[in-house]
Amino acid sequence: MFPIKLTNSLSGQKETFKPLVAGRVGMYVCGPTVYSDVHLGNCRTFTSFDIIYRYFLYTGYKVRYVRNITDVGHLEGDADTGAEDKMAKRARLEQLEPMEVAHKYTLGFHDMMKIFNTLSPSIEPRATGHIPEQIEMVQEIMANGFAYEKNGSVYFNTVKFAKEHPEIYGKLSGRIIEDLISESRDNLKNQDEKNHPSDFAIWIKGSEEHLMKWKSPWSTGFPGWHLECSAMSTKYLGEKFDIHGGGFDLKFPHHENEIAQNFGSCGSTPCNYWMHANMLLMNGRKMSKSDGNTITPQQLFTGDSVHISKAYSPMTVRFFMLQSHYRSTLDLTDDALLAAEKGYRRLMEAYKVLNTLESNSAAGELDEEINFIADAAFANMSDDFNTPKALASLFDLASKIYSFQAGHLSIASVGKTTLERLKKLFQDFIFDIFGLIDETSSGGDQEVVGGLMELILKIRANARTNKDWTTSDQIRDALNEAGIQVKDGKEGAAWTRI
Amino acid sequence: MFPIKLTNSLSGQKETFKPLVAGRVGMYVCGPTVYSDVHLGNCRTFTSFDIIYRYFLYTGYKVRYVRNITDVGHLEGDADTGAEDKMAKRARLEQLEPMEVAHKYTLGFHDMMKIFNTLSPSIEPRATGHIPEQIEMVQEIMANGFAYEKNGSVYFNTVKFAKEHPEIYGKLSGRIIEDLISESRDNLKNQDEKNHPSDFAIWIKGSEEHLMKWKSPWSTGFPGWHLECSAMSTKYLGEKFDIHGGGFDLKFPHHENEIAQNFGSCGSTPCNYWMHANMLLMNGRKMSKSDGNTITPQQLFTGDSVHISKAYSPMTVRFFMLQSHYRSTLDLTDDALLAAEKGYRRLMEAYKVLNTLESNSAAGELDEEINFIADAAFANMSDDFNTPKALASLFDLASKIYSFQAGHLSIASVGKTTLERLKKLFQDFIFDIFGLIDETSSGGDQEVVGGLMELILKIRANARTNKDWTTSDQIRDALNEAGIQVKDGKEGAAWTRI
Repeated sequence: MFPIKLTNSLSGQKETFKPLVAGRVGMYVCGPTVYSDVHLGNCRTFTSFDIIYRYFLYTGYKVRYVRNITDVGHLEGDADTGAEDKMAKRARLEQLEPMEVAHKYTLGFHDMMKIFNTLSPSIEPRATGHIPEQIEMVQEIMANGFAYEKNGSVYFNTVKFAKEHPEIYGKLSGRIIEDLISESRDNLKNQDEKNHPSDFAIWIKGSEEHLMKWKSPWSTGFPGWHLECSAMSTKYLGEKFDIHGGGFDLKFPHHENEIAQNFGSCGSTPCNYWMHANMLLMNGRKMSKSDGNTITPQQLFTGDSVHISKAYSPMTVRFFMLQSHYRSTLDLTDDALLAAEKGYRRLMEAYKVLNTLESNSAAGELDEEINFIADAAFANMSDDFNTPKALASLFDLASKIYSFQAGHLSIASVGKTTLERLKKLFQDFIFDIFGLIDETSSGGDQEVVGGLMELILKIRANARTNKDWTTSDQIRDALNEAGIQVKDGKEGAAWTRI
Repeated sequence: MFPIKLTNSLSGQKETFKPLVAGRVGMYVCGPTVYSDVHLGNCRTFTSFDIIYRYFLYTGYKVRYVRNITDVGHLEGDADTGAEDKMAKRARLEQLEPMEVAHKYTLGFHDMMKIFNTLSPSIEPRATGHIPEQIEMVQEIMANGFAYEKNGSVYFNTVKFAKEHPEIYGKLSGRIIEDLISESRDNLKNQDEKNHPSDFAIWIKGSEEHLMKWKSPWSTGFPGWHLECSAMSTKYLGEKFDIHGGGFDLKFPHHENEIAQNFGSCGSTPCNYWMHANMLLMNGRKMSKSDGNTITPQQLFTGDSVHISKAYSPMTVRFFMLQSHYRSTLDLTDDALLAAEKGYRRLMEAYKVLNTLESNSAAGELDEEINFIADAAFANMSDDFNTPKALASLFDLASKIYSFQAGHLSIASVGKTTLERLKKLFQDFIFDIFGLIDETSSGGDQEVVGGLMELILKIRANARTNKDWTTSDQIRDALNEAGIQVKDGKEGAAWTRI
């Protein structure tokens, strides 16, 4: 197996992955906020990290994969004061207990992750379930002099932190403190408590109406939204772990502030590698509800949207995601989905054809070429999880498979061992690494129906040859009753379900 | 609709349900401990409360149904000192982080609840997610003088509580303090910290090896296992709510101590109605791993157990559970499961036949009788959720349905309106109230296969009548290839899948 390289957002470079503990990976990925249905863009991010998780597992690593559930503290507009907690707002609108809303959308999120066939992480901690850990982290940050209290809220002192640790603050997002200041000028509203506009809240005093709040040494309130990830990654993966992932949009301010919090509390940056999955666009533009350029996973699966010509299956969408690198933007268009549907079917078909092939050769003249392409598939996956290139290798192999089937290439030109390797490679890539499900054959009944229809059409053909039109018509009628329509053509009879 | 009556364990009487808020039900049910696969006995308890939840919803109540996940604090042997926390022990054996174990078995529990087609509760709070609430409750109990600290652990003072509130402590379990004392004599080990053997820990100082612990005013430790339910029911349902449920085995000490904690902290008992689901036995005896008298849900579904002659489907098992009242013990035997399988199929078949029936009569002489039985079905459900009696009503109606089908009763003897009511009643009871799924027709393919086989066997019978053995044999061979075996009997040919 090739050593795994990955692009570290911190250095902007591709680096060879070196785990902190041999054979183990500790990985934290920012999960969903459960106040509404999961967005398709989030599905792309989680699918990207699902493939990264799967590839680490496949290459033999023992992985502890932590992905949080944000059920409190994510503020409106990503500004951390003044705005109301999203969870509580939605809850009051629906006259529900906030945790009832959170539970409903957590279930919906889990269902959607199953539909996309993503593996569950090892631990799925909830922000509300880790209030003591977050309060403790605030205390540590204050003890280290990087936070101050104002009227029951606590703010992280970015100016002090940036001055003392210029090698840390701003490094991930590539911003310098002057940028951060001007960046935040627009958000001056309700920020009079802060010493500096770029400071951010790590504990927020809850207003009277606020539904989700807890006692703390400073006020009855709730944690700032950057804090949970720092506290929960530390709890389950330690002060230093291997990989922290999330969507590109979280790089700043969320991840930059996470680093500041972790270092501010324990003197260590949280992880060695930061990985970011890029955005999902639609028709070349950012998805946005306000201008109608948006689509939900449900709409994709039902076809109920002006943006697509038909329904697409979950595995078509997953395949579509595999066709671009996780660090590239992915542009969802109807044409691209149609192409993905074709590609997915072609891949599954090649897999099935492959399994019918048998070779008696000990070795063959194509062995070297096939092994070269097979190696390339793994090399591409190990090179920053390059799924589009790995897919391209598989399609190179699929062409060979179709040529064997059509007889354009002799099956004798591939050796037994190479053919076996090829079979294992397709099986492993399709199901274990890419995490696809075979949607093209739904259970055994479909095959049985195929077998029975073959028999019936043969009997009917015999009857027609013998000019026994009565039997032929009886069969047609009985098939109609069973929901099957027969059409006679030049090359014999074909059948479809009515 | 009939007013709902339920047996209140607190009074031992059947009482008419009166909600605290008109039209709403607040219900808390003790959930699973997620340190191993969920037991079949637990499945029975959760299915019982699922039907209760469904019936409240069906009758128009808005229900907030809270069922907790115990991921910490449930001690071995149900004794609350000395023993190690089950979660942590299992975690060390598997060299896993406790929350990784908890997550794994929580997923498994959710899968099993889906297999049994139980609805998710409205909120599913975790014990580890509510440490501040539990610490606060300990503080309140101490402030009210009903708890004392010893070496970092905090104990509930049962003697004082029983003396001051003899009308409360012991009422649910029907025990008096003298009983409680002698009851606990066996558990004197490691109890030297307690003032009295019947006292119980509400906060436990964690040992060095203990993996799951949190800071508190008394020690770094963890909550006693009765505490989470008191704290979480209060948080999500208020200091007083309608119904608290659980298995019979939780009545004492768990529920008795919950009442003491709730009253001890806020001066109010938690709920108006206590409901308990009885035990699942096997072959007349308590299930027990040590003597081999045990079976898992998986074994039931695969048939892989010496205790059963074949595999049973999830809906057969659910139907089996419906056949006894939730307050009665339920004895699992192979014969009972075979009977349940038959009963389930008969009910589903009656439902299908019913939907083919049409009446042109405005009214008929059977209307009164049928409406009487239909009313009885609802009356039985409203009478303490009596599923076996409601099922009996449905089977009375099924007999009528079969008689209509066979022509023993004229369909004209039932009026249009009554027939429509009957159809709605079957639909509602089977799917909404009993929560059954139709396993008897799995999609369209099964029907298509049936239709095609009918046709093929007719053709084959013709061939045999004409002594055309070649065609007959060809058909048989082709069917074998398609995975179908034909057996000729006195009453014609039958077929099975190979």
